[in-house]
Formats: sequence, C-alpha cells, structure tokens
Amino acid sequence: MMHLTLIGIGTGNPEHLTLQAIRAINAQDLILIPRKGAGKADLADLRRQICADVLTNPKTQLAEFDLPIRDPGTPDYRQRVNDWHDAIALRWQGTLNAHPQATRAALLVWGDPSLYDSTLRIAARLDPQPTLEVIPGITSLQALTAAHQISINEIGAPYLVTTGRRLRDAGWPTGVDTLAIMLDGDCAFQTLDPHDIHIWWGGYVGMKEQITHAGPLETAGPEIIEMRTKARADHGWIMDIYILRRTSC
Amino acid sequence: MMHLTLIGIGTGNPEHLTLQAIRAINAQDLILIPRKGAGKADLADLRRQICADVLTNPKTQLAEFDLPIRDPGTPDYRQRVNDWHDAIALRWQGTLNAHPQATRAALLVWGDPSLYDSTLRIAARLDPQPTLEVIPGITSLQALTAAHQISINEIGAPYLVTTGRRLRDAGWPTGVDTLAIMLDGDCAFQTLDPHDIHIWWGGYVGMKEQITHAGPLETAGPEIIEMRTKARADHGWIMDIYILRRTSC
Repeated sequence: MMHLTLIGIGTGNPEHLTLQAIRAINAQDLILIPRKGAGKADLADLRRQICADVLTNPKTQLAEFDLPIRDPGTPDYRQRVNDWHDAIALRWQGTLNAHPQATRAALLVWGDPSLYDSTLRIAARLDPQPTLEVIPGITSLQALTAAHQISINEIGAPYLVTTGRRLRDAGWPTGVDTLAIMLDGDCAFQTLDPHDIHIWWGGYVGMKEQITHAGPLETAGPEIIEMRTKARADHGWIMDIYILRRTSC
Repeated sequence: MMHLTLIGIGTGNPEHLTLQAIRAINAQDLILIPRKGAGKADLADLRRQICADVLTNPKTQLAEFDLPIRDPGTPDYRQRVNDWHDAIALRWQGTLNAHPQATRAALLVWGDPSLYDSTLRIAARLDPQPTLEVIPGITSLQALTAAHQISINEIGAPYLVTTGRRLRDAGWPTGVDTLAIMLDGDCAFQTLDPHDIHIWWGGYVGMKEQITHAGPLETAGPEIIEMRTKARADHGWIMDIYILRRTSC
C-alpha cells in the first residue's frame, strides 16, 4: 500500500517551508520532481534546492519525471485540463512503478495543495489508490498580502477568490467588494471600469525576483501591464496575482 | 524608530511555524504576548510554548499584557470593534513604552496576519508609527482543507470567504457555489435550506484537539451542532470553521 503525501512548500522563498513540511520531506522513500522543460518556470530547480537544503534522511530518493504537455487541439477548457491530469497521473504511476520498494512517496506542491492546484485531483486518478496526507503551505495570496502589509478582508466583510478568465467573462461579481484574482495570464483587470477600484499586484511573490505595485486601478493598471511585460521578457516567464477592492460603491 | 513584525504562527500546531517565522522570532528584542484571562482560548500558553521551543536568541524578551474586554454596551458592531482596537493599541503602546531599549518588537499572530485578523489595524493606531513587516502563516482555512484532503475551489471556479454573521443575515450569495465561513459562533449554516449542500467542518483545526466532520448538510449539520456543543463544554471554548459547497444548482 502506497502512502502519498502532498506537501505545500510555499511560493519560492525556501523559508516559507513549515516544520511540518520539513518533517514530511524527511519521512519519504521517494520524492517525485516534475520537470516542465527548458524556458518554463524553473520550479524543478527550486524543488531540488529545497530537498538539498532540508533532507537529512539518507534513504530518501528523488525521482524526476517529465510533465506531459496540454493538447492545445482540445477546444474545451475542462476537457483539456481533464486529459492533462490523466496524462500526469500516468507519469506519476510510471515513476512510482519504477521504484517498487518505495511505500512512502511525496510531491512538493507550489503554494498549498488545496488552492487552485491540481495535485489532489491527479492523486485521485492513481490506481491502486494510495492513502493520502496533505500538508498545508503558504500560498501566493498570502505572500501578496504580506508584501503589501494588507488585510485581504475589510472588517467582517467577505472576499471572493476567482480567476482571470472568470473576471474577464463575467465581470465584477455582485455582493462583494474585494476580489483576489489568480491564474490570470492576460491582466483581466483591463476589462473593468477602473474608477473607484484599488489594485495590489505582485509578480513572483515570495521569490527573490518579487516585484509589487499598488494604487488606483486607473493609473496603476497600465503601470502594472508595463512592469509585467518587461518582467516576463527578462525572466522568460511570470506568475502573478492581485487583489482588487472597490473603494466606494 | 520601532520596527514591528507581525508573525503568522499557524493554528496551534507548533509545526505550522515556517522557517521565516522562526528566524523573525529570533530577530526581536521584545515579543508581546497578549493574555485573554482564565477560561478563554488559552493562546497565551501556546505562544509561550512556541517561544520556548524555537527561541535561541538570549536577548529576546517576552512581555505579557492583558487584553482589554469589548464593551458589550456599545450596540453598533463596527463601533464596538473600533473601540476595542483603540484600547488594544493603547496596551501595546504601554508595553512598548515600558521597554524603551527595545527597537524590534513582534506579535505572534494566530493564523495569518492578513486573514480576518485585527493586528494590522491595531498596528496602524500606534503613535509614532513603527516600520512594519508581515510574515505569513498557515490559516485555519488551510488546516481545514488539509484535514479533509480537499481543494477549496472546483476547477477554474471561484470561492467566497465570509462570516457566519453575513451568511445568517444575507443568505447564500449569488454567483458562487463554494463558501468558506469564518467567525461563526452560532452555526449559521442552520439558516440555509440544506438540500444539495455539502459541508466540511473542523473545530480546533491544526491543534491536538482537532475534530472534523463532513457530509450532506441535511444529515451532517445536526451532527456538527452536537459535536460542537459537546466540544465547547469539554474544553470551555471552541474555534471552528467550515466550507459549504452546492452540489447541484
């Protein structure tokens, strides 16, 4: 029986690691390290570095595998994601099968396994099903609010976490004045009327490359688009996140 | 010039501490420990224990102070909270003034300083204003999703974080199928039509006392109320949190 631990590792600051994560890393026979290919966000390096920094158990092995590529020919978004998760699960299974002596394996999950992450859904596809364990980790949303020294919520008020795609397609949702936007490759805030909206933005939050900007959306929005374009060109990739708040309604 | 660091410490599991939090604790002259008084959630003990476990800097002092009590005679909720924050800021200031040699001070914040926490708002009341630093910590929401091994969001879908008060007063918000409910002392889920709603609940999440339950709201709701009542009687206090998801809409 395989025991699979999904370990949240935070967002690129090696000091985001919790003591629980460090203990879990050292309790494994095998740590699966996905490789995305050259030119992509080099998270494999970060995962290798984390293991080099905190692994003290000589029995723990690393096993690298190449992530499959999403098929851009599949038009439906959900179907494309589902097919991709199926393909990743097969790679995990192949890597686990190549280490039949390992009974405890783990994946190091960017951020937290429970927030806009597919690792739990991929794990559910494994056959036979392993027993599971989840270790929470610092998310990019928390790294963003820490960098800006802000509360995500106003006193007693709600906030909505959503995606760039949703914001672009459906506009500002009703009944909520604070939005956190994840997975936005296209600066969906451009599609909003910027009046009376404040933005707190960050790229590479938690990493040494971290950049941030904040201000009224009307002026800060175009500045963020420029910063983002430049940073993406400089690094070859970008991950960013932002919070929007209506300042009068 | 005072430098004030707000350090997220997670939700009662000492292993929620990040390496960043441990480094920050050891970088202080003074750590302020609020006391709530007997019979309340004994978080002062937890904070003392965390310091005992990870403090290696002999120069770091702990300074305890008694939290003021909210005035139940103030009818307006926001005013009551505002007055209370003013009173807490005065206690902080008094404690800092009693240690004039300290230039770096910190508070250990339950969960994360950015999520339904008043520490940033209280810090903004200090005069003179210190320079600030925020260290993110694992939240009860993350401890809940880890305990239940669930994603908080469905693929590409939004979720709303809100309070028990809002859920009770305004009902299920429009346009979102997943809610995370915080600060709910009265099981506000009882005010919903329970059909086609699933609940994932946890009390004392992350702590050794952790209890969880999940299921269709129609059957799990009353069971949770019973568990909660018993746990509150046994421990003298309870902190709980839950996620609700519409299973068909």
